[in-house]
Amino acid sequence: MKTPSQDVVMGLHCIEELFKYYPKRLLEVFVQDSMKQNPRKKTLCRRLEEKNIPLRRCSKHLLESLCGSSSHQGFVARIKKREISLFPSFLEKEQRKQESRLLLLDRIQDPHNVGAIFRSAECFGVDAVIFSNKQGPSITPSVSKVSSGASEHLRLVGSSSLANSVAALQKAGYQVLAASLTEHALDAARFSYSSKWVLILGAEGSGIHPSLLKKVDQELYIPMRGKLHSLNVASAAAVFLAFATQ
Amino acid sequence: MKTPSQDVVMGLHCIEELFKYYPKRLLEVFVQDSMKQNPRKKTLCRRLEEKNIPLRRCSKHLLESLCGSSSHQGFVARIKKREISLFPSFLEKEQRKQESRLLLLDRIQDPHNVGAIFRSAECFGVDAVIFSNKQGPSITPSVSKVSSGASEHLRLVGSSSLANSVAALQKAGYQVLAASLTEHALDAARFSYSSKWVLILGAEGSGIHPSLLKKVDQELYIPMRGKLHSLNVASAAAVFLAFATQ
Repeated sequence: MKTPSQDVVMGLHCIEELFKYYPKRLLEVFVQDSMKQNPRKKTLCRRLEEKNIPLRRCSKHLLESLCGSSSHQGFVARIKKREISLFPSFLEKEQRKQESRLLLLDRIQDPHNVGAIFRSAECFGVDAVIFSNKQGPSITPSVSKVSSGASEHLRLVGSSSLANSVAALQKAGYQVLAASLTEHALDAARFSYSSKWVLILGAEGSGIHPSLLKKVDQELYIPMRGKLHSLNVASAAAVFLAFATQ
Repeated sequence: MKTPSQDVVMGLHCIEELFKYYPKRLLEVFVQDSMKQNPRKKTLCRRLEEKNIPLRRCSKHLLESLCGSSSHQGFVARIKKREISLFPSFLEKEQRKQESRLLLLDRIQDPHNVGAIFRSAECFGVDAVIFSNKQGPSITPSVSKVSSGASEHLRLVGSSSLANSVAALQKAGYQVLAASLTEHALDAARFSYSSKWVLILGAEGSGIHPSLLKKVDQELYIPMRGKLHSLNVASAAAVFLAFATQ
């Protein structure tokens, strides 16, 4: 299979979301010709045609090679490239807001986790997700599908140095928080969140890079009682965001 | 590939967890012979040998056919079958406890979601996970791997009728709660949880079956602010459990 290009999305729900909010981003939709069309699929096809979005019937094989996956549910779309903001220009505008909630992902790559984190970030009203230009996640068709289309709603920001970005956020008055399991960490459920914060999440296993962790204002933990003491990173992200946005 | 049998687990972390807590459940461990052994893998192999747990070096191909997946990380184990309690005998004992927190899964099948829900359930100290004997999840090697071994710590309970089990729990004094998006739902963050509750989660898309939903004492929602109004079911499970166990 080809490496999927980043301006391709797949899955029924993801394409429905794009059509609902940003129909102009849909350049071309490929539909599996041999597929049984249930009412939901038929409705989507009819609406796409009504909006004059080109609809191409094609083979399952072609769909798979377009999106690099077999989880396409018979729908793949070529979309206008998503905008990834550059950190300096993003911060310049964002810091003028009264309230700002940001997520910063340090080396989280697993498409299932990235997609689920995007979905939670959108649901809890996160203003932007920042990641490294070099080691950040690729927003593959799998990521956007798992995110339920949240990858297309969220403001995505690329940083050339996460450590420098964290320092700049701190200077701009952001509370810099990190998900952590060290003894310095405070209970995330009882923490007093300011109106501007950035939450750093690190990859499972390796955690947050020490160069970032040492800049943090406060490490936070989720109180737990079982034998395992760490949640899946996407589950942890959802819990932190739920606590911080109540 | 063969259908994986249910007494097989895979993945380094999952087998480490089993070895740490229940070494007697490990009957036989298969290790990929062509694999580069990092210190962590070498340590596990040495400890297994010290405990006289048979270690078989074998090909990647054999590993894949044993676990029905390519995500084995070079480690697959045959384990003593996990006990699935029957609901009536489970409830008879469980209802005598002062505190009891239960999760009931209605038709959630996706291995990624089931595994992540198990992991969160264990982390937040859920006493048992109840599912339908007929339509419940298969605890495949993928489920136990995604659960980080939580599938081996958790008490798993099979029910021959979820509706009857919910009625029996209610009679035994349990608060029956359901994750829901209807207008009857209350804010899960501000709800007053009793010392005995059961939380019902339904499959994404289809939700909780109406026959179960009508028995519920209280529907609960997670307050959100984005355009998407529903979290991934595993993320939602983590947030509900975090709120209910604070």
